[in-house]
Amino acid sequence: MSKKNLAILLRARMRSNNSAKSSLSQFPKEIPSNPQENHSGDHHIVRNSSDLDTRGRVYDVVRETMHSAISASKTGVSDITLNDFQEGYSSLSLEDRGKLLLALAKEYDVNREQVRELIKQYLGLETPSSDDALSSVFYRIEWNLRHALKPTYESFFERLNTHPGGLRFLSILRADLLSILTKENTPSLRTLDSYLKEKLGMWLSPATLELHQITWDDPASLLEKIVAYEAVHPISNLLDLKRRLGIGRRCFGYFHPSIPGEPLIFIEVALMETVAQTIQEVLWDNPPIPENQSTCALFYSISSTQPGLAGINLGKFLIKRVITLVKKEMPHVSTFATLSPIPGYMQWLLSKLQTQSRFAEEERGGTESNPTSSTFSEQVLLPEEEQALMSLSDDSSSGSNGMEVLLNFLTQKNCDWATSPRVLPVLEPILMRLCARYLLQEKKRGKALDSVANFHLQNGAMVERINWLADRSEKGIHQSGGIMVNYVYRLENIEDYAQSYFGSGQIHASPGIHSRL
Amino acid sequence: MSKKNLAILLRARMRSNNSAKSSLSQFPKEIPSNPQENHSGDHHIVRNSSDLDTRGRVYDVVRETMHSAISASKTGVSDITLNDFQEGYSSLSLEDRGKLLLALAKEYDVNREQVRELIKQYLGLETPSSDDALSSVFYRIEWNLRHALKPTYESFFERLNTHPGGLRFLSILRADLLSILTKENTPSLRTLDSYLKEKLGMWLSPATLELHQITWDDPASLLEKIVAYEAVHPISNLLDLKRRLGIGRRCFGYFHPSIPGEPLIFIEVALMETVAQTIQEVLWDNPPIPENQSTCALFYSISSTQPGLAGINLGKFLIKRVITLVKKEMPHVSTFATLSPIPGYMQWLLSKLQTQSRFAEEERGGTESNPTSSTFSEQVLLPEEEQALMSLSDDSSSGSNGMEVLLNFLTQKNCDWATSPRVLPVLEPILMRLCARYLLQEKKRGKALDSVANFHLQNGAMVERINWLADRSEKGIHQSGGIMVNYVYRLENIEDYAQSYFGSGQIHASPGIHSRL
Repeated sequence: MSKKNLAILLRARMRSNNSAKSSLSQFPKEIPSNPQENHSGDHHIVRNSSDLDTRGRVYDVVRETMHSAISASKTGVSDITLNDFQEGYSSLSLEDRGKLLLALAKEYDVNREQVRELIKQYLGLETPSSDDALSSVFYRIEWNLRHALKPTYESFFERLNTHPGGLRFLSILRADLLSILTKENTPSLRTLDSYLKEKLGMWLSPATLELHQITWDDPASLLEKIVAYEAVHPISNLLDLKRRLGIGRRCFGYFHPSIPGEPLIFIEVALMETVAQTIQEVLWDNPPIPENQSTCALFYSISSTQPGLAGINLGKFLIKRVITLVKKEMPHVSTFATLSPIPGYMQWLLSKLQTQSRFAEEERGGTESNPTSSTFSEQVLLPEEEQALMSLSDDSSSGSNGMEVLLNFLTQKNCDWATSPRVLPVLEPILMRLCARYLLQEKKRGKALDSVANFHLQNGAMVERINWLADRSEKGIHQSGGIMVNYVYRLENIEDYAQSYFGSGQIHASPGIHSRL
Repeated sequence: MSKKNLAILLRARMRSNNSAKSSLSQFPKEIPSNPQENHSGDHHIVRNSSDLDTRGRVYDVVRETMHSAISASKTGVSDITLNDFQEGYSSLSLEDRGKLLLALAKEYDVNREQVRELIKQYLGLETPSSDDALSSVFYRIEWNLRHALKPTYESFFERLNTHPGGLRFLSILRADLLSILTKENTPSLRTLDSYLKEKLGMWLSPATLELHQITWDDPASLLEKIVAYEAVHPISNLLDLKRRLGIGRRCFGYFHPSIPGEPLIFIEVALMETVAQTIQEVLWDNPPIPENQSTCALFYSISSTQPGLAGINLGKFLIKRVITLVKKEMPHVSTFATLSPIPGYMQWLLSKLQTQSRFAEEERGGTESNPTSSTFSEQVLLPEEEQALMSLSDDSSSGSNGMEVLLNFLTQKNCDWATSPRVLPVLEPILMRLCARYLLQEKKRGKALDSVANFHLQNGAMVERINWLADRSEKGIHQSGGIMVNYVYRLENIEDYAQSYFGSGQIHASPGIHSRL
């Protein structure tokens, strides 16, 4: 899963800074305030300064434990020290964690004296031309240089990883780090994050992940996590959860052996007669058809659970493996499709309309004050769309051109346009056409701009159909004008499509979508 | 598990070069020889040269596939290419595999032009003193340099690892590489092995390994592997296997999710009333006591299964985790001990006796021709031992000093000394004393010289007792004069002992053992 994608799935949690809270809740140990001064309100100032002292001392202890854990010999670090560090870290405030991570980044960095010494030796040797004794020296120095360039904290991460519970701890630590980086984006912290991310990506390679079907028979402690982490279509209560796992539905998760009882990512599947066009069709209370009459498995929700694993592609192979499992259980299912949100559509469209209507305004003024406007200006709307929009222009949404009118409608509070019988039919063809353009033609570094599109395309899907007013919720209207998209996975094409997307950024789409452009 | 240890456990298999055979047998595809020329003996030469042609072509195809798999963009390499490479590689002869691995080591090495360019940039920058924009450049160049020093083949290993079956494949590839290195130990191949070993060690960290109890209810395909890999006390037939998994015994294995159905290492446990002193006590046909009367869990066999994972410590945490499981199931078990071979004892003793009796001879000659002899000579035998041995000296084993007599006895073919009522009582105290010395005092780089001792000591055990004629098999007499050792794990000391062994090489031992020194 791409960084963008995860960021979107997790936006709600990351924003409310729940990540730090939830990681703290894993470690019930809290530093008690001084009990002797806790009974009276008279000693407010004293108590506060004493609290600060206590906190300072606790920080120093954790800092010291970290130092012991890092400076012990490679295999001599004890489980107790690592345990103490994990517990101590978890008892710190986010502020103190930030301080500690900065110390880690700066004081346990690369040993640069050693690097310079090895570089000197390295440059003194000739690149070997044959496999002789001299080349042996060269290879050794090169190996040593490579390892000297490894920051000390990287070895510390490796130690933590081999410690029971360490991988989970590191994922919490990275969630903190990402949260701190939003406020204090320094080069040393960014580098710390790059190394940690690289390590986590290696340890969580698809080879180590296990796919399990999650059912109502699973432990409540696991199921509550599904409720907590379901990011796409929130689960309201236990009955709702039971339905998600019951007849006509399936739920699969990727698990890692050292983070037991908690999927890193999970996917929900509904068994349908045809590919659903709206979420209402999917979120039924009672199965619309018996399972053995289903021909389509619809992936209607994919959620990541660990904010600390943002940017690490956990979804690779997930869909392919789920398809294999479903196909094995139900050979009568022949279509594998999604009903997906288009999380970036409105954001892109509004920004495009703002820029272009300003350019249009400037050009109309004929001042030519801004030479970039003519270079970057484009016709966002077709002439007939322009006309239709201008004819809608009234008090509630006026504008000097079609783009401005559209912009005003889309930014109305309460999204009134979406319930107006007068406006809706005019906006439908325009928003649908621009949505097809957004999905098929808007790219960043050669990949689809939309994070969910990018996720499915790199997994080998094609864009099959876009559906008008498929999600009428406030969030749906706000994100994508209520439009949702069906991606389809065709078994015979998955491999080819994934590869051509990776290789040349080619996006496969149905003729129906192409005809909208 | 240390490299030495694994090497010993696997010696039999490695020697007979079964590793290559067994890896080939995983991939039934064989290159067919040309069928048109296969029916007659008349075309021997033609057929052979055609075979060579075919082989050459196959090699070229595999070589080409490898190149495609390596040079595709990071995420653009297809599963099909990697599959093709794995299958193609497996169809090659060991000789061609060696050729391919040498090509991999040399042609997909570090990009040294890029490294030199980055070093130039790196040396042009000052080490950052504060977190500013300049330090950002420094960190980036340093990160790039570190990554440029990564051989191209390392990325290829990473690709294979994320591919289904890839980890298993890499372990086979490394077994081949180790086998090739015994014949062609070139710096480039050694470096290739170092990187592959480092990667495998990371991917197989204890965090990713799962402990399972292996029982008679497990699939036959798994159980046959236990039979095949049991290296310490071979399993003769199905009934024997059933006994190893039946009442009074337990078997546990470490599994990795991407090498399913096959333990990487497994350990066999016998439930006893007391700590066994001989293997006969352990290898009973019928349980000597009901399980609920057992107070001791005896680890009597630990076997590694993958020659390609030699040198990678898979046993870490294994014993601690097994103890936890056993303790949970049977709280009445309070002693956790091993009955272990001492694989290096005789080899060390014979070499010691040879050197020292030569020194003694030279000194007795009084020629002083070799000044090192007096420097390195030592009293291996006590005066009373010397005397007792000389009194044994006869036609079957004569010698000019006690060491020579002992050497001659120990190197008799058929190990006659071990069945002689006259010799045995004289040798017992000598061999037992020297064995205690070997286990407690002979070290290499600060660690126990004996590989099995090193394994248990680093896991937190202590040396409890050595047992005379505990293994009367030819192998047992040959390896360790028939002596076996009990290591004991005391729950309350495991952590401390492991740490002091790692830190200072301290070997904890019972007073009984110490008194033998």
